[in-house]
Amino acid sequence: MFDAIVLGVDPGVARLGLAVVGRRDRRMTLVWADTVRTPSGLAEAARLQRVADGAAAAIVAHRPSAVAFERVAWNRNQVSAMQVARATGAVMVAASSAGLPVEEYGPSEVKIAVTGMGNADKEQVRVALSRIHGLLDVPVQPDAADAAAVAVTHILASRMRGIAKAAAR
Amino acid sequence: MFDAIVLGVDPGVARLGLAVVGRRDRRMTLVWADTVRTPSGLAEAARLQRVADGAAAAIVAHRPSAVAFERVAWNRNQVSAMQVARATGAVMVAASSAGLPVEEYGPSEVKIAVTGMGNADKEQVRVALSRIHGLLDVPVQPDAADAAAVAVTHILASRMRGIAKAAAR
Repeated sequence: MFDAIVLGVDPGVARLGLAVVGRRDRRMTLVWADTVRTPSGLAEAARLQRVADGAAAAIVAHRPSAVAFERVAWNRNQVSAMQVARATGAVMVAASSAGLPVEEYGPSEVKIAVTGMGNADKEQVRVALSRIHGLLDVPVQPDAADAAAVAVTHILASRMRGIAKAAAR
Repeated sequence: MFDAIVLGVDPGVARLGLAVVGRRDRRMTLVWADTVRTPSGLAEAARLQRVADGAAAAIVAHRPSAVAFERVAWNRNQVSAMQVARATGAVMVAASSAGLPVEEYGPSEVKIAVTGMGNADKEQVRVALSRIHGLLDVPVQPDAADAAAVAVTHILASRMRGIAKAAAR
């Protein structure tokens, strides 16, 4: 049905944003999105297991051809950044164990790819996802919306890399 | 055979230190130690999968009752710290999926628990592991030695917590 189908991941321990975006010809479709939430009272290792299991279940259900991660922003506080990095590692293993290629994009890379502005705010990203890229029903939940944005970024970037490679031949 | 058996983990993507330490009465024994190495040419997600799989295999082989991690030192460079955090997350999922409790100890906590000095160097830790704690054949490889030290730390700390709890009753 799709030429490419990408699982976007906005990593986190309390909330993991997930979104599956498909591309056919030049049209993109939001196939599914969800946020895995873990209770703060649970041990960190168990929370990491839940987010990894949530991502693994999404991979089984939607059979993406690649997984795209939003890279942690290092200007945030260290405890938060460490938690996000741990969640990233946990979910990367789920992706790699499923045999899928993994790509990462920084926050400003996602913003510029989706909106044309490296400093776009969340609302501008939402508007661009629907009006420029044709995604209906952009998730209201911010982490799932970020996951959709990074999936769209990967689809756009992969297409450009494909064109660049073909031109270089 | 043992009253407690702990898998110590010194997390990393290029090298993951693993050591299994058993305690019987007050005697500690180094049961096994190894370093999982991953090639630098491999994609990060695949390297994370290898370290997680290595830890999972050690859990299956040695059936520890707990897993103790050395916590990343945040004064190191950010790229390195992020990689270590990702490896920590990947291995924590392996521990949690096996149903094991996870504990973490910072570098100075390990040093003071093992040597009595929060600023001990690696050689002092090695000497203390063999002469104070009775571990024969402390691993020569530094990451595996660090893993043995964090396993010993967990055994000592758990014992003290047990005594403290009993005294509070």
